[in-house]
Amino acid sequence: MKMSKMFMPTLREVPADAEITSHQLMLRAGMIRKMASGVYNQLPMGIRVFNKIQDIIREELNEKGCQEILCSALIPAELWKESGRWDVMGAEMMRLKDRNDRDFCLGPTHEEVFTDLIKQEITSYKQLPLNLYQIQVKYRDERRPRFGVMRTRSFTMKDAYSFDTDEAGLDKSYQDMFDAYTNIFARCGLDNSPVQADTGAIGGSVSAEFMVKSEVGEDEIVFCSGCDYAANMEKAVAVVAEPSTEEMKELKEVHTPGVHTIEELENFFKLSADKFAKTLVYVADGKTVVVVVRGDREVNETKVGNAVGGVVEFELANEEVVKAVTNAEIGFAGPIGIKADYVLIDNEVANARNLIIGANKTEYHIENANYGRDFEGTVGDFRNVTEQDKCTKCGSHFEIARGVEVGHIFKLGTKYSEAMGCNFIDKDGKSKPVVMGCYGIGVERTAAAIIEQHHDENGITWPLAIAPYHVVVVPVNIKKEEHMEVAEKIYNDLQAMGVEVLLDDRDERAGVKFKDSELIGIPMRITVGKDIVDGKVEFKLRKSEEKEVISLDEIKSRVEAEFVKNNVKLG
Amino acid sequence: MKMSKMFMPTLREVPADAEITSHQLMLRAGMIRKMASGVYNQLPMGIRVFNKIQDIIREELNEKGCQEILCSALIPAELWKESGRWDVMGAEMMRLKDRNDRDFCLGPTHEEVFTDLIKQEITSYKQLPLNLYQIQVKYRDERRPRFGVMRTRSFTMKDAYSFDTDEAGLDKSYQDMFDAYTNIFARCGLDNSPVQADTGAIGGSVSAEFMVKSEVGEDEIVFCSGCDYAANMEKAVAVVAEPSTEEMKELKEVHTPGVHTIEELENFFKLSADKFAKTLVYVADGKTVVVVVRGDREVNETKVGNAVGGVVEFELANEEVVKAVTNAEIGFAGPIGIKADYVLIDNEVANARNLIIGANKTEYHIENANYGRDFEGTVGDFRNVTEQDKCTKCGSHFEIARGVEVGHIFKLGTKYSEAMGCNFIDKDGKSKPVVMGCYGIGVERTAAAIIEQHHDENGITWPLAIAPYHVVVVPVNIKKEEHMEVAEKIYNDLQAMGVEVLLDDRDERAGVKFKDSELIGIPMRITVGKDIVDGKVEFKLRKSEEKEVISLDEIKSRVEAEFVKNNVKLG
Repeated sequence: MKMSKMFMPTLREVPADAEITSHQLMLRAGMIRKMASGVYNQLPMGIRVFNKIQDIIREELNEKGCQEILCSALIPAELWKESGRWDVMGAEMMRLKDRNDRDFCLGPTHEEVFTDLIKQEITSYKQLPLNLYQIQVKYRDERRPRFGVMRTRSFTMKDAYSFDTDEAGLDKSYQDMFDAYTNIFARCGLDNSPVQADTGAIGGSVSAEFMVKSEVGEDEIVFCSGCDYAANMEKAVAVVAEPSTEEMKELKEVHTPGVHTIEELENFFKLSADKFAKTLVYVADGKTVVVVVRGDREVNETKVGNAVGGVVEFELANEEVVKAVTNAEIGFAGPIGIKADYVLIDNEVANARNLIIGANKTEYHIENANYGRDFEGTVGDFRNVTEQDKCTKCGSHFEIARGVEVGHIFKLGTKYSEAMGCNFIDKDGKSKPVVMGCYGIGVERTAAAIIEQHHDENGITWPLAIAPYHVVVVPVNIKKEEHMEVAEKIYNDLQAMGVEVLLDDRDERAGVKFKDSELIGIPMRITVGKDIVDGKVEFKLRKSEEKEVISLDEIKSRVEAEFVKNNVKLG
Repeated sequence: MKMSKMFMPTLREVPADAEITSHQLMLRAGMIRKMASGVYNQLPMGIRVFNKIQDIIREELNEKGCQEILCSALIPAELWKESGRWDVMGAEMMRLKDRNDRDFCLGPTHEEVFTDLIKQEITSYKQLPLNLYQIQVKYRDERRPRFGVMRTRSFTMKDAYSFDTDEAGLDKSYQDMFDAYTNIFARCGLDNSPVQADTGAIGGSVSAEFMVKSEVGEDEIVFCSGCDYAANMEKAVAVVAEPSTEEMKELKEVHTPGVHTIEELENFFKLSADKFAKTLVYVADGKTVVVVVRGDREVNETKVGNAVGGVVEFELANEEVVKAVTNAEIGFAGPIGIKADYVLIDNEVANARNLIIGANKTEYHIENANYGRDFEGTVGDFRNVTEQDKCTKCGSHFEIARGVEVGHIFKLGTKYSEAMGCNFIDKDGKSKPVVMGCYGIGVERTAAAIIEQHHDENGITWPLAIAPYHVVVVPVNIKKEEHMEVAEKIYNDLQAMGVEVLLDDRDERAGVKFKDSELIGIPMRITVGKDIVDGKVEFKLRKSEEKEVISLDEIKSRVEAEFVKNNVKLG
């Protein structure tokens, strides 16, 4: 492509409303433009990158025997009612009515559609296994779209669904996808880690997220420093400490005027936060849930949600509810005598002795509270782990990092096939529900994650496999015929080899051209300037400072060598 | 792909609800499945075909310097309000609200989005011309979705928009697209014709539809038998006959009890239909429109709509309105003394003499009515042409055929750029509106049109360029090791050449396999059977009855020859 003809609106300035690097660089490199909050249009420089990611996904999935299909984003409500999710999905699901007043949604995910398709077409074990995927636009009305294409309301997703006759089949399908994902993200140049994750609203038993470590990630990932254990914070299991052997002391009510927070309590009692228990009140689908964790810990809302049977709406209780539950102002809740639908006690609190808790009486706390003697509840793991926690697998300590979730794979089991009657006749002549898995990759988010890991102060440094173009040819002065002639010849020769080439034939200073090519991140630059009198050009890799002067007849092999080095097929 | 693993649910029976051949064959060949009225999912055999059409479109458009982008289908109402179309688009536009109660639509077309994008990014003539396209899902809530993917509510469309500094630029862009479309449809194997068309709701001055002649087409196309004139029925211009020189006779009221229709009038008066004028009453955006055409003619509602300034809602008046306008029951309307917002008289009626018309009085008609003397109105071309009409260009008679519209190109001019303030600074320093064109192709409909033109009683006969796979290799008996071994070798060898091959390794009789391969329309079939003892296989083209027996080492060159013959690139 000749850059003089190209629709590539680059920006010199960092856009004010772009907080993270990938968002800034996607805007500056002319890859995307915002149409509405969380809704983006993809410009030529963007769509080329997104398409390359899609092509890699296709290659790796086809390699595993997956087959591509394409379902509509417009889904009749009936399918979601069959699975029971029509009423469960909240405001995130975009809904509309057709001209005949029938309910539809814009698919935020496609379990129902794929399950129904298989239900209609599959009757026998002979037709299984199948693994079907699509690359398609998903719609999710996010409460807080942000960070450019990291979290949007309309985005491209590869979603795949596997259909097996039994759990062993699902295990194989899941492992195939695990391997495919590992290859896909490696080919995208991403340093990523699969981590155990909660299955959430999708349901199912086992699930892994593919996480790209990044400071801008919205998720916290927990890694073990000693073994390969890695989990999403939502899922990471907190080690259960030995029960304290301290002797139980007598309960004692203390007047604590104006002392509400753990920090205020630490100052008041001159004790560290681990000597306190904090009691939080939630409302989950209309029921009250009390959670008690140590003063220095954070409640893990996912664990709490799972413990009360999976919830849709989950939030901290308001003042009114807290008063009803505790008989006191906010800040004085405690587990003794509290009245709630669920009382959940974190392992650490159950195993500790003589904690200071709220008295359920405004301006009072209680010393020396002990689980079992003074209060009861369901004991379990209800807190976030910390770096002080030890791995339950190997006992080494944890490391915590932020990550961007680029892929997610689930063993669904028979959740959807049972709800929707997606059965097959097995070898033994019996009707059984199909055993399913589901597997997603966010395409644009993957591109954003690549930028987060591949950039410098001048712009993007695309891996060769993902770059919108492989090479940019820069004639230093387009008015010099000898520059332009050679540049055009290099441009044509490389294109004939199957290399994707930009020719910067714009009437701009070389400095401007260099700046643009660095901003948009083209992996190789060939500059045609004064050395051309000696039949030489300058060759520079985007990721290196080194400038090589090479002869014209070396260009092809030099470029080819980069493809070999990066393990990218030419043409 | 090995067919034993493939998701290809073929059907023996013709599905009851599929009226036309392409719909029946797409269902039977396992290409598509219906999810809701007018909403289809694409299965592997379908998506491969649709993707090939898309690839051809991309190649031809890129060749013309067009650049691919991708806009969201979710469009904020603001853009449509800017252009003035938010209130103009009827129930066909699917609308929804987001969680913050903001209005969005699902784009039925993207003039607004592209215009706004260019408005944001382009400031100078130096950045023009541009021609941007996307291949993307459109949503149109059709009143009557039908004929499978011919008319759906969610479909893949290639839409392109050109941006020029002046009309001469637009002329070139339009001609480029005209040429690209001609190539695209030729490569798809379609016998098609570009015809003049009405610009309709999109607006603009000049427009052409690319029509595939087919009995199942929803459009009528008018061709001149003597020259290259071709137009959509909506647009085809009716020749204006010489005024009659017959003497005007005296008006005469006749009692015509129970005589309403033209047929009843013919019987009652013993005269042919051309001796009558029929008067139809419409309601257009709340205004009454009376149209008078000869008894043997049909009103052209597009011409009428244009004559009254372009309308959104347009329908025949109900009984109540007819009574208010004519003072009579339905069946006795006539132009004399009729009270309506518009009275439109077709040229033929104005030029005829002594017509019989309704009396605007129940059970009465009037003889010898004459335009000018007895009634007035706006005279013009308000009827459909017939095969008896003569071409206004060359005088030869017309031929009328049915056609499927697969593409449509428009000169929009400055309609959208003026409404939305999409301006640029020209060479002369003046701000001017960008001059636009727009260009669409329906992807799935193109595939359906190809099937309408390429099928026989056994199934689809895909052109090589569009076929989901090029070759099917059929081992007659998979239990015979020598059949399977050779079949697999051919399968692998052809794949290595870049040929897309199916291996029918299903445990089925050869007859079943042949029937399936004919149904799904694979262009070449290689059968590995008893001749293999002599190192020979059977080679058969789908479009021919002839079976060639060729040796194993001839296979590659035989297959290659078909690619050359069909002008399709290998690999």
